[in-house]
Amino acid sequence: MKLIYTGIRVKDMDRAIEFYTSGLGMKLIQKPQRFAPTGGLFAYIKNTDSPQVIELNWYPETYSKGYHDGDQLDHLGFWLKKDDNMDKILERLVKLGAKVTMSPYVEGRTKLAFVKDTDGIWIEFLQRVGKKKIQ
Amino acid sequence: MKLIYTGIRVKDMDRAIEFYTSGLGMKLIQKPQRFAPTGGLFAYIKNTDSPQVIELNWYPETYSKGYHDGDQLDHLGFWLKKDDNMDKILERLVKLGAKVTMSPYVEGRTKLAFVKDTDGIWIEFLQRVGKKKIQ
Repeated sequence: MKLIYTGIRVKDMDRAIEFYTSGLGMKLIQKPQRFAPTGGLFAYIKNTDSPQVIELNWYPETYSKGYHDGDQLDHLGFWLKKDDNMDKILERLVKLGAKVTMSPYVEGRTKLAFVKDTDGIWIEFLQRVGKKKIQ
Repeated sequence: MKLIYTGIRVKDMDRAIEFYTSGLGMKLIQKPQRFAPTGGLFAYIKNTDSPQVIELNWYPETYSKGYHDGDQLDHLGFWLKKDDNMDKILERLVKLGAKVTMSPYVEGRTKLAFVKDTDGIWIEFLQRVGKKKIQ
């Protein structure tokens, strides 16, 4: 299991890309893609001389009304290896005080789950799975 | 200029370290150190097989009363090269809609400044300077 990015939420995807590229010299390493469950968009940016990756997250009004101060940190993204046991990891985190905010589910070839840590920080878990859907 | 970490704010430094190490397999790569201007603490964590770095930030009540939902994303940290012009960078960002929340100042051998981007995200700039203090 490893951290792969920090997701920040933006009000306007184009404006955010302009700010982080023209303003801060970062490069768009993955253009905005649609995330079906929310109807939102996600894109990745980084500086060429740094491995740190930021995910830009945008949601339509139909999914999330308004943008309140505090919505800025969308989530931290952790990638799980094939042999990592997502259920066991969630169980361990709950014992440490986390709350499961979205139980594991499969979207395409990716298994996902979300928890909220003891400070209220959302953490996403992603894992590649076979094409067979888990019911 | 390059992004070097994402800073998240925590209510209890020891509990956060326990959560991110025991819970998420990250390593403490720099133990908590005192940050004089706030009386707070900062520490760095990362997974051994990932370059992504998280800074844990904790502040005492004397500096920041309470912890509100939304305080979770403390800031993004950008490192400036010696020949980067901090004033020019801030000027460029202001033109793109940012607000300077802390003008450049020198703390020990580091020059620092903070801006708030167009989504309200705090961004810190750090630059190594000579021992001679700028007055």
